Amino acid sequence: MRIKVILHIIGGLLILLGFSLMFPVIVGLYYGETDAIDFLLLALFILPSGFVIYYLFRSPLDIRYPEGFLIVTISWLVVSVVGAIPFITTHTLTNFADAFFESVSGFTTTGATVIMSLEHVSQTILFWRSLSHWMGGMGIIVMSMAILPELAGKMQLFKAEVPGPMHERLKPRIRETARTLFWIYFSLTVIQLILLYLNGMSLFDAIIHSFGTVSTGGFSSRTLSVRAYNSDAVDWIVTIFMFLAGVNLALYYQTFRGKVKVIFKNQEFRVYTGIVLTFTLFITINLRLNVYQNLYQSFKYAAFQVVSIITTTGYSIVDYDIWPPLSHWLLLLLMFIGGCAGSTAGGIKIIRIYTLIKKCRLELFKLRHPRAVNRLTIGKDPISEEVSTGILEFFFLYILVFAITVICLTSYGVDLISAISAVAATLGNIGPGLELVGPLNSFMPLPNTVKFILSGCMLMGRLEIYTVLVVIFSGFSKK
Amino acid sequence: MRIKVILHIIGGLLILLGFSLMFPVIVGLYYGETDAIDFLLLALFILPSGFVIYYLFRSPLDIRYPEGFLIVTISWLVVSVVGAIPFITTHTLTNFADAFFESVSGFTTTGATVIMSLEHVSQTILFWRSLSHWMGGMGIIVMSMAILPELAGKMQLFKAEVPGPMHERLKPRIRETARTLFWIYFSLTVIQLILLYLNGMSLFDAIIHSFGTVSTGGFSSRTLSVRAYNSDAVDWIVTIFMFLAGVNLALYYQTFRGKVKVIFKNQEFRVYTGIVLTFTLFITINLRLNVYQNLYQSFKYAAFQVVSIITTTGYSIVDYDIWPPLSHWLLLLLMFIGGCAGSTAGGIKIIRIYTLIKKCRLELFKLRHPRAVNRLTIGKDPISEEVSTGILEFFFLYILVFAITVICLTSYGVDLISAISAVAATLGNIGPGLELVGPLNSFMPLPNTVKFILSGCMLMGRLEIYTVLVVIFSGFSKK
Repeated sequence: MRIKVILHIIGGLLILLGFSLMFPVIVGLYYGETDAIDFLLLALFILPSGFVIYYLFRSPLDIRYPEGFLIVTISWLVVSVVGAIPFITTHTLTNFADAFFESVSGFTTTGATVIMSLEHVSQTILFWRSLSHWMGGMGIIVMSMAILPELAGKMQLFKAEVPGPMHERLKPRIRETARTLFWIYFSLTVIQLILLYLNGMSLFDAIIHSFGTVSTGGFSSRTLSVRAYNSDAVDWIVTIFMFLAGVNLALYYQTFRGKVKVIFKNQEFRVYTGIVLTFTLFITINLRLNVYQNLYQSFKYAAFQVVSIITTTGYSIVDYDIWPPLSHWLLLLLMFIGGCAGSTAGGIKIIRIYTLIKKCRLELFKLRHPRAVNRLTIGKDPISEEVSTGILEFFFLYILVFAITVICLTSYGVDLISAISAVAATLGNIGPGLELVGPLNSFMPLPNTVKFILSGCMLMGRLEIYTVLVVIFSGFSKK
Repeated sequence: MRIKVILHIIGGLLILLGFSLMFPVIVGLYYGETDAIDFLLLALFILPSGFVIYYLFRSPLDIRYPEGFLIVTISWLVVSVVGAIPFITTHTLTNFADAFFESVSGFTTTGATVIMSLEHVSQTILFWRSLSHWMGGMGIIVMSMAILPELAGKMQLFKAEVPGPMHERLKPRIRETARTLFWIYFSLTVIQLILLYLNGMSLFDAIIHSFGTVSTGGFSSRTLSVRAYNSDAVDWIVTIFMFLAGVNLALYYQTFRGKVKVIFKNQEFRVYTGIVLTFTLFITINLRLNVYQNLYQSFKYAAFQVVSIITTTGYSIVDYDIWPPLSHWLLLLLMFIGGCAGSTAGGIKIIRIYTLIKKCRLELFKLRHPRAVNRLTIGKDPISEEVSTGILEFFFLYILVFAITVICLTSYGVDLISAISAVAATLGNIGPGLELVGPLNSFMPLPNTVKFILSGCMLMGRLEIYTVLVVIFSGFSKK
């Protein structure tokens, strides 16, 4: 490990963070809130520190192979720790466990909150939370391009599936691709913002919710989340943009270039749409038969929550905690499935689940026809044994981390459904879970240690587990 | 598929089953119960039918590759259907769904029951249930040797891990090995039977419980299960023999031949013992702190239930439904882990879980040291990529089948914890689950369709999922 390179990058990150702290300062000044001063002071501390570290440890930006894992993990940690400071200095939250949890939840685009009532929080802080989502989402996209391709063999996130600008000749064109994706991300945000504003939301709330939607984060400015607006138009706009945000962003690039068919020919997109429709149908029927008298209402709730959870956004327009067991189980499964690769969504991701199901089908076929020579393909791309085995390992690790973390949570006396859903919801970067951590509750009542454990889950989930585990195991093996 | 071969084998199986029906006849006559007549009539129908089919479709016993799957699946189905008949003719159970469930539960050594009060059931029927366990256990051992080695590449149950008589030159020595294993199985049963009898159990109850223990089945003659005897000695005898029954039976062969060290050098045995001790420790502490005042009591309950569930036996000496969430979660995990390969225990099995964890550790190591050349080994045996990938696929399929079956159960309104534990407990061939299907309850109140689904789970779990799935998918592909 070359400490110099790591510090150089951390310095750069602090500069970026320092500048971004100016946005809540502006918001605070506009609303005449004293919280603006906290952000200004922090920026005045972070910015020079960043510059000093950046220039003191000047070094070429060639990230070597195993260093990437450490850099990514440390970056997310540093940003989360700095991002947690304003929550404490503004007295929004009283202890570091809470502030760190909220900050990690922001930058990992999870959207789980420890704040009980958002109506008692300043606009400045609300804006900062949502900005952390939006920046976190951008960070994920950059990270996916810069670091994760190293893991592509393991991950199967980019090499075979991502079409267009990122295909194959990925690394030499990082800057260009990043710029393209940034504009897609930015445009989606602006379009949704305008639509929400036109449909009765205040400009501030429209910004908050478009940040939360496009980053698949899910922080709201209202304790009741999107439900607070009680507007059909808002519900559907958010549903549609959550769905769009769960799609591989690179696909939009093709669409803009006139190749509209590409998106419909994309296997992952088709499976994603299929899962959303199937789960919505099941839950609609389940709700209509057991909970609501109205078919449209059942359908709207089902569609919203299915999209919200599969894209790992976590907004809600209904207390799905009162839904029947079938709906709960389907929502829990969606927490594991997650969105498309190349989006800001978390979870195991569609392409992985789809590859595994295809692989198992192929194996069953081979057991019946031992002499048959069949290759695993996704769309027209062949999938190597190495890649598909890597995905299987990822799946096993994901379940293993899940199982062990639920042990930790239940050892603090958290009930089983709450523990299972809390871990699934943080590891998958969704946000709210069921029961104790349901859509109308917050993570506040949990013990501080549990909050740190769940913060770790959010980071692991965001950094595709491997990244964090490699760093942890490196640490152990040095001893 | 050569129908002739299949019918020939089914015929042989019916002859065997016909003879075994004579044992409950003897029991019934001894206790002067009219149920003996039902069994006698069934035997008088099954035996000639078996002989006719056996000789009518006489054919060489060379099972070809893909046929094995169909033969195993059909065999278990036929035996279960025939075994279900006495439950109906004796009016113990009133409909086929219940009778089939009880019979499948017996022959798959699951031990889940739909009988509400065992004290109202005739000794004849009680004996038949337990005999089905014991025969099922024997059947599993034979099947493991005759059919599953075909799947060994996928399964990693025998090729690399089983030492002694079964290693490598397995197939030419099936008869000899089967005989050795039968005597081990038989001896364990007799020793336990004597120990239970000497410690105050009636001879009948001692037979029932040694059948249930050694086959890792778990049917009892008392509604309260082993708890009914309220005896420390009985509790510990059952604990120890459940533990012994969860071990690879082939290891005892080595021990008898004087190579006592082999068992302690066996990786799977060590991991198995480690898991039992660790989980017992965790649950003991959890129980002592939250439920019971007495450390010894907490330890005894924890040890009994951990061993009972990891070996997939399912006996209980306490209503663990009232235990805290941590204990529930640990028991749920044990349901998935299961016992050692080469035993009659179900679940995913220790060797598979252990291989996967070792594989993932190796992958993490490789990510840090890309140039390192390390091979996956269990003990001293290298594990090929094909085998370890096969295990990963098995794990994924297991979780997939689990997830889908819970969808089915919850769609009938079963609550989430009951549904999760019912599927885990039947797929893993354990028996009782939690809440609605907890140790003091029965599966009786569930809808008939759910009972059929869970019967399917027991069969799938018993036949290592692949076997059943290959048959199901063959059926589909023919259409």
